[in-house]
Amino acid sequence: MTVRIGMRAPDFTALSTKGPIVFSSLKGKWVVLFSYPADFTPVCTTEIVAFSERAEDFKKLEVQLLGLSSDTIYSHIAWLRELKEHFNTEASFPIIADTDRSISTEYNLIDEKSWGIVRGIFIIDPNQIVRWMMYSPPEIGRNVEEVLRTIKALQFNWDKKLSTPANWVPGDPGVLAAPTSLEDSYAREKDGAPRWYLKKSGY
Amino acid sequence: MTVRIGMRAPDFTALSTKGPIVFSSLKGKWVVLFSYPADFTPVCTTEIVAFSERAEDFKKLEVQLLGLSSDTIYSHIAWLRELKEHFNTEASFPIIADTDRSISTEYNLIDEKSWGIVRGIFIIDPNQIVRWMMYSPPEIGRNVEEVLRTIKALQFNWDKKLSTPANWVPGDPGVLAAPTSLEDSYAREKDGAPRWYLKKSGY
Amino acid sequence: MTVRIGMRAPDFTALSTKGPIVFSSLKGKWVVLFSYPADFTPVCTTEIVAFSERAEDFKKLEVQLLGLSSDTIYSHIAWLRELKEHFNTEASFPIIADTDRSISTEYNLIDEKSWGIVRGIFIIDPNQIVRWMMYSPPEIGRNVEEVLRTIKALQFNWDKKLSTPANWVPGDPGVLAAPTSLEDSYAREKDGAPRWYLKKSGY
Amino acid sequence: MTVRIGMRAPDFTALSTKGPIVFSSLKGKWVVLFSYPADFTPVCTTEIVAFSERAEDFKKLEVQLLGLSSDTIYSHIAWLRELKEHFNTEASFPIIADTDRSISTEYNLIDEKSWGIVRGIFIIDPNQIVRWMMYSPPEIGRNVEEVLRTIKALQFNWDKKLSTPANWVPGDPGVLAAPTSLEDSYAREKDGAPRWYLKKSGY
Amino acid sequence: MTVRIGMRAPDFTALSTKGPIVFSSLKGKWVVLFSYPADFTPVCTTEIVAFSERAEDFKKLEVQLLGLSSDTIYSHIAWLRELKEHFNTEASFPIIADTDRSISTEYNLIDEKSWGIVRGIFIIDPNQIVRWMMYSPPEIGRNVEEVLRTIKALQFNWDKKLSTPANWVPGDPGVLAAPTSLEDSYAREKDGAPRWYLKKSGY
Amino acid sequence: MTVRIGMRAPDFTALSTKGPIVFSSLKGKWVVLFSYPADFTPVCTTEIVAFSERAEDFKKLEVQLLGLSSDTIYSHIAWLRELKEHFNTEASFPIIADTDRSISTEYNLIDEKSWGIVRGIFIIDPNQIVRWMMYSPPEIGRNVEEVLRTIKALQFNWDKKLSTPANWVPGDPGVLAAPTSLEDSYAREKDGAPRWYLKKSGY
Amino acid sequence: MTVRIGMRAPDFTALSTKGPIVFSSLKGKWVVLFSYPADFTPVCTTEIVAFSERAEDFKKLEVQLLGLSSDTIYSHIAWLRELKEHFNTEASFPIIADTDRSISTEYNLIDEKSWGIVRGIFIIDPNQIVRWMMYSPPEIGRNVEEVLRTIKALQFNWDKKLSTPANWVPGDPGVLAAPTSLEDSYAREKDGAPRWYLKKSGY
Amino acid sequence: MTVRIGMRAPDFTALSTKGPIVFSSLKGKWVVLFSYPADFTPVCTTEIVAFSERAEDFKKLEVQLLGLSSDTIYSHIAWLRELKEHFNTEASFPIIADTDRSISTEYNLIDEKSWGIVRGIFIIDPNQIVRWMMYSPPEIGRNVEEVLRTIKALQFNWDKKLSTPANWVPGDPGVLAAPTSLEDSYAREKDGAPRWYLKKSGY
Amino acid sequence: MTVRIGMRAPDFTALSTKGPIVFSSLKGKWVVLFSYPADFTPVCTTEIVAFSERAEDFKKLEVQLLGLSSDTIYSHIAWLRELKEHFNTEASFPIIADTDRSISTEYNLIDEKSWGIVRGIFIIDPNQIVRWMMYSPPEIGRNVEEVLRTIKALQFNWDKKLSTPANWVPGDPGVLAAPTSLEDSYAREKDGAPRWYLKKSGY
Amino acid sequence: MTVRIGMRAPDFTALSTKGPIVFSSLKGKWVVLFSYPADFTPVCTTEIVAFSERAEDFKKLEVQLLGLSSDTIYSHIAWLRELKEHFNTEASFPIIADTDRSISTEYNLIDEKSWGIVRGIFIIDPNQIVRWMMYSPPEIGRNVEEVLRTIKALQFNWDKKLSTPANWVPGDPGVLAAPTSLEDSYAREKDGAPRWYLKKSGY
Repeated sequence: MTVRIGMRAPDFTALSTKGPIVFSSLKGKWVVLFSYPADFTPVCTTEIVAFSERAEDFKKLEVQLLGLSSDTIYSHIAWLRELKEHFNTEASFPIIADTDRSISTEYNLIDEKSWGIVRGIFIIDPNQIVRWMMYSPPEIGRNVEEVLRTIKALQFNWDKKLSTPANWVPGDPGVLAAPTSLEDSYAREKDGAPRWYLKKSGY
Repeated sequence: MTVRIGMRAPDFTALSTKGPIVFSSLKGKWVVLFSYPADFTPVCTTEIVAFSERAEDFKKLEVQLLGLSSDTIYSHIAWLRELKEHFNTEASFPIIADTDRSISTEYNLIDEKSWGIVRGIFIIDPNQIVRWMMYSPPEIGRNVEEVLRTIKALQFNWDKKLSTPANWVPGDPGVLAAPTSLEDSYAREKDGAPRWYLKKSGY
Repeated sequence: MTVRIGMRAPDFTALSTKGPIVFSSLKGKWVVLFSYPADFTPVCTTEIVAFSERAEDFKKLEVQLLGLSSDTIYSHIAWLRELKEHFNTEASFPIIADTDRSISTEYNLIDEKSWGIVRGIFIIDPNQIVRWMMYSPPEIGRNVEEVLRTIKALQFNWDKKLSTPANWVPGDPGVLAAPTSLEDSYAREKDGAPRWYLKKSGY
Repeated sequence: MTVRIGMRAPDFTALSTKGPIVFSSLKGKWVVLFSYPADFTPVCTTEIVAFSERAEDFKKLEVQLLGLSSDTIYSHIAWLRELKEHFNTEASFPIIADTDRSISTEYNLIDEKSWGIVRGIFIIDPNQIVRWMMYSPPEIGRNVEEVLRTIKALQFNWDKKLSTPANWVPGDPGVLAAPTSLEDSYAREKDGAPRWYLKKSGY
Repeated sequence: MTVRIGMRAPDFTALSTKGPIVFSSLKGKWVVLFSYPADFTPVCTTEIVAFSERAEDFKKLEVQLLGLSSDTIYSHIAWLRELKEHFNTEASFPIIADTDRSISTEYNLIDEKSWGIVRGIFIIDPNQIVRWMMYSPPEIGRNVEEVLRTIKALQFNWDKKLSTPANWVPGDPGVLAAPTSLEDSYAREKDGAPRWYLKKSGY
Repeated sequence: MTVRIGMRAPDFTALSTKGPIVFSSLKGKWVVLFSYPADFTPVCTTEIVAFSERAEDFKKLEVQLLGLSSDTIYSHIAWLRELKEHFNTEASFPIIADTDRSISTEYNLIDEKSWGIVRGIFIIDPNQIVRWMMYSPPEIGRNVEEVLRTIKALQFNWDKKLSTPANWVPGDPGVLAAPTSLEDSYAREKDGAPRWYLKKSGY
Repeated sequence: MTVRIGMRAPDFTALSTKGPIVFSSLKGKWVVLFSYPADFTPVCTTEIVAFSERAEDFKKLEVQLLGLSSDTIYSHIAWLRELKEHFNTEASFPIIADTDRSISTEYNLIDEKSWGIVRGIFIIDPNQIVRWMMYSPPEIGRNVEEVLRTIKALQFNWDKKLSTPANWVPGDPGVLAAPTSLEDSYAREKDGAPRWYLKKSGY
Repeated sequence: MTVRIGMRAPDFTALSTKGPIVFSSLKGKWVVLFSYPADFTPVCTTEIVAFSERAEDFKKLEVQLLGLSSDTIYSHIAWLRELKEHFNTEASFPIIADTDRSISTEYNLIDEKSWGIVRGIFIIDPNQIVRWMMYSPPEIGRNVEEVLRTIKALQFNWDKKLSTPANWVPGDPGVLAAPTSLEDSYAREKDGAPRWYLKKSGY
Repeated sequence: MTVRIGMRAPDFTALSTKGPIVFSSLKGKWVVLFSYPADFTPVCTTEIVAFSERAEDFKKLEVQLLGLSSDTIYSHIAWLRELKEHFNTEASFPIIADTDRSISTEYNLIDEKSWGIVRGIFIIDPNQIVRWMMYSPPEIGRNVEEVLRTIKALQFNWDKKLSTPANWVPGDPGVLAAPTSLEDSYAREKDGAPRWYLKKSGY
Repeated sequence: MTVRIGMRAPDFTALSTKGPIVFSSLKGKWVVLFSYPADFTPVCTTEIVAFSERAEDFKKLEVQLLGLSSDTIYSHIAWLRELKEHFNTEASFPIIADTDRSISTEYNLIDEKSWGIVRGIFIIDPNQIVRWMMYSPPEIGRNVEEVLRTIKALQFNWDKKLSTPANWVPGDPGVLAAPTSLEDSYAREKDGAPRWYLKKSGY
């Protein structure tokens, strides 16, 4: 069974550059887990740098960032030391060494053609439910802004119980869920919604 | 076997609001296939409106948009007529009636808890290979700008054979793939790259 | 195992236009469950109108009508609103949204060729036993009068413990079951029945 | 696999009161196949009488009637002789002796509780496709008029390629199938149909 | 496993022309169970007549006669009424309606070629052990005298613990079982038996 | 699969007291195959004597008698020599040594309790079809007269295509098979048969 | 699993010419079990005569002789009576009737080509362990002297815990088992044995 | 399948002290194959000496002797050199090194308790059929004279087509096989045989 | 499952030239288990001599040496006596007779091509864990010095919890394990190690 | 099936620091394949340094060295650059990136407890047959001298067809294989070998 929206995120225990991690111990926090193909490669370098630059923003949203590749812990350390020395990047979040690929297998991150690791990203809510996921090929770096926007939308939904429309940005109103009975549809209409099934709410 | 990055996108034949569609006949074009939970619901309405507003942009990129839900063709027609009448939205792209959910099953779009359809989106290249995919929950509308940015990154990679770094936007330089032999790593260094494994290229 | 005469009707829980329904909670009532292919289609429209026009008669017989298709609850609401506005039809009975087709599968309603839903109709007695069933193709609308006649025949049998002969209409006498021993056959004959195995009863 | 609407009707060879029957040799004719529980029983007697009385009408519609029970051919003969002698009924159609229940099993006619035969009826078109089926319990006799009405509706559909609305009777207009593309829906509307999906046709 | 000499006779519950029968409730009595192909056929008629004529003899031997075919109870009644009216035969023993052929299957009575019922006959002792069985084709009627002779031989063996030689008739002496040790064979010889292994006994 | 009425009799090759026998080479002749429990036992002795005394009658009917037990050919010879010396019996028919019980297994002759051989008897027609069979326990000798009567009935049926009624003896008339269509039943009646299904024929 | 040297001899219960035998009740005695092909055959006759002539010798060695073939007990009795009358042989030991070949199967005595019984012989010690076995074809009679010599060797081994060398005859010395450690081999040598591994002992 | 009397002896290829041996190449010769537990053990030593002393006799009978144990060829050589030096024994026949026990497994020579090799001996005729076999425990040496006697009996049977009675020694007459038909038994008797089944022949 | 580094060494019980051995009773001692192809062969001879010459060194390291081949205990004794007499070698350690190859199978010592035993060697620590293993072909003798060096390295690691670098010899310093977090890597560096991941320690 | 002495070495295709490698293309050369746990770790560093220092010697023996771990090619390059910069080590042989562990699995290199890679080393001859293998734990570095000595012994055996005794060093004589027939053993002895099975040869 592959990982899906709405599923409990698979638990794991792993070595990271910040020491051992037991995933289930993060319950109660929002988590962003992202995988990348390999240490000492170009796009991955720009991604680590980009995530590090916006580390403060993730922190404000109380989100735990977790990087992951199938390199060993020793390779991770060597690379992060490089990045610090040459790119002045302090990776303040843990990077997991999934050397035996057990986590990669559970999160469907193995590329069947090259048997490498793809760029996956998972937003997991405080109940450890998978709420959003994206898979990108090795040659296309991710957009950290879009990740931040999506977290904010999910947190808006978590707090307000409202949905967010297409192209929503923080500050925009949300929308109410559609009615699920004929009677409710007539009631909704009386509120002056554009149509019985669409009603915005500034909350 | 679930759909994955790098796989041949599963073929299908289906009814749509623009007539029957044979997916394989679209070979040679970029395709964006996106699913949504249901006709006559609010977030879906904002998404159809948003995709319709940017339809011209997708056209310029020579991308075929395909919408999909498990509603019947008759429900699709009724809803699009509504949207035209009340939201002045002309949906110029086909919306597929995956009534028996055969396509949804192949593209891993069924929500195991509610057995509804989730918001999936797939960018498929002219060789009909799945290049990018994202899964979002029903309560969070998608960002059409990010979809456009990603298509441009993939088309840049398709044309230039360069990767795009994190947060890339059209106009930014790309990066070369890392060297795969020791010798090449020394050669690369001589070109003045910041590090042997990272070299930007405006091309 | 497909549904059959004499079986306990398969239980289900579903969304309807009148709110959630737990089938087993209807125990103690006669139920008519009928499926139709799709919202926003012509024959189905005439059937909903016809059932609605005779809703009072079903009510007098204390029969719970249940409509069903695999459209979503949102499509059902949109269509019923249409029917009210354009055909002045108030659908006073619930219409079930069997979106994941779990009920349709249990009641053998899936058309193997088109994978659509056929026109099935089931009369279920207060013990929730299936007593009568009919399957009709999408292109042939049902006869509501015949459904009413059949319910009355079943209720006559339920009340009087008599069978109803061919072409029976309310008011006609019923017939006794045939004797099951030689001795009884001679006894029956003495009552002046036309033949030992056929005896009408006005009761 | 149980028999379903749209399936090729299962072929069979059997003894009947009119001599041996090979079902596939009836291709090109409309067939009404009806089963009943047992010879020498009351409701079955009224049904044989009722079908015999309307035999001429079936003949005009060029329909081949076929009765069936699991009694032997000898019991059938004895009973039909009785019916002739005592009820003045000349059964002009064949009654099949499905003594080994092979046909009953294929047409899903075996009552799982009593292991008797239920009252099934199948209307089969000239292509030998099952178009309509009804299952009734032993205690409820069938309505021959409704069978005739249904045949006429199916023949109207066969000839005119129109559907019949609810409660249709011969002479009533039919309805066109709903449009299956957005464009067609607008075109249909222009013809003055009450709604884009409902258009009657006297043809 | 087919029925065999020495086996416990398979139990059954069935409808008969004398009311319901539970076979195991007959324990303690000798039973003759005989099957025949069909009601309203010629050889079967002569057999029912023949068994009825000797019913008194079976009664004296305290034997329960049981007839059986796969006709329904209604066909049985119709036929027995015929036989009484036209052949003056009062069938004083029950005739079982094995309509679902469950008993016929257990007693190996199904003709694999025609799937009809063959003429089987079983003599079952008071311990419900099968002691004798005969299978005859539909075209050959049975000899009631030989059945009576065999019952008497079995009852002689039951009472006296002697075997009966070939062609034995009531009144003839029986024979002792052969000795089973060398020593006994010499002892037996001294009694003047024709040979050590053959010794008659008038008892 | 056990041996049944109407089956091709299982073929075999065996040693007998008259030399080797290939059963299939007897095709074209009537065969009576009878088994008995053991050589040098009392009831078996009386049976061999009885069959030998009537050997001439079997010969006249052109029937090949075959005895069989699981004793060796050497035991058979020793016993037949005994019988000749002490009982003046010349066994003119072959007795088969089914030492490995392969024939006994095919003809269902093994007693499951004692694992001995039971008294089976099979009448096999010139097409090598099993037409009649009887199984008797070790303690009850067979009636040679009844075997002769049954052969004559089967030969009468073979020659005249008539059935034999209950208690038939040579010289009695036979009966015609029952009619298998309603029309034939009326035709048969006109011949003055007692009932339409029973008509004797002296032929 | 076939019988082997060192195995517990398979237990059995059987009829014999001396009455029923339960093999396990012979525990504590030496047993010689020998099979032969058939009663009333020549080599078998010479063997029964030969064993009978040396019966006294077996008795002195306290050995229980058991003969066995698949003939019935009745055939055994007939043959032993013959042998007494014509060869003056009193078979003082039991001969088993393994009619259903259950013992022959366990002791691997069935000839796969002819399905007859071969000449097997088993010497079984007081613990019911198989110590020696020989299989000879039907055409070669056994040497009773060699059987006696072998029993004496086994009893010498049982009593003295010495092995017997090749061609040993009673009265000859035995040999000690070889040493099983290097140290013991040097110790053994000092006793003046011809070689460290060969030392005779008169005991 | 274990080796049995009458079977084709399993073929093998092996190393021996006389070089490689292909068993099938010995076809046309009598073979005596004997196994023993181990080199450098006492009883085995006496057996090799005994077979060597009678090697000339085996040669005269044109019999190929083959010894076998699971020791390596190097251990065999070491031991035979010992035997020559210390016991003056020249082993003129090959001794097989069945180091991987493949031959021992096929000839059923493995002792299930100790997993050692038992003393088996097989006489194999020129058609490579196993004619005689004996299994003896490690502690009991074999009798070479009895092996020679048995070979002579088998060769007498091979040459003369006569059986050998119990205790036969070269020079004694043989016996004829028993007759296999009643007629032959009377014919045999006329020749003055002691009994119809026993007739000696000096040939 | 084949034996691997880090596994519990498979337990066994066996005969050896020093008496029976139960492997698990050696727990708490270092063990060197080595196999060789066969007694009485040249390379094996030089190995036994070489191990014997260094027996004192193994003793000082408190290592239990165990030799093993599939020869019998008798062959082992014969060969060791040879080696003592001709090579003046006193094999002071046990040599196991793995005659049934059960140990060889568990330790993966069987050569699949020749089915002989290969030269395996296993160093097992006091917890009976396999720490080192080497497999060499029959034609290449082992280097006893390298075995001693490896034992010393393993005992150094056991005592000091340090690793040994390439080409380590007793007296050389060991190395510390690499750090497993980024923080530790910076801390390690401060100690003046040549690189953060390499730090020698004389301990 | 795990890799074994004498097997064809499993083929593979892989990325290495010297470019792609197809193992089978190395046929005709001696190959030393060695695995190590991870880049950027201490013992592995000393091993790469040690192999590099003796690279010239391997070259003289015409041996292809191949290193292997499951790190990516990028990690390998980063580490080798480090080693060159900080340890002045030029790794002149390819190091394979077995990132998906397919080669490690085939060569049995996965540590079942930690799922890391163990230190395996394989010497493979020009026919690509595995001739020697050693497995060492992560904490014990290998001895490059012993690897060189073993290669020389294998090449001596390849060239001269002689075995090498224990502790052999280049320059020492080899030994001849033992004789495999008794006759050869006597012949060998005449040459003045110390024993028939041990003969050195300077060649």
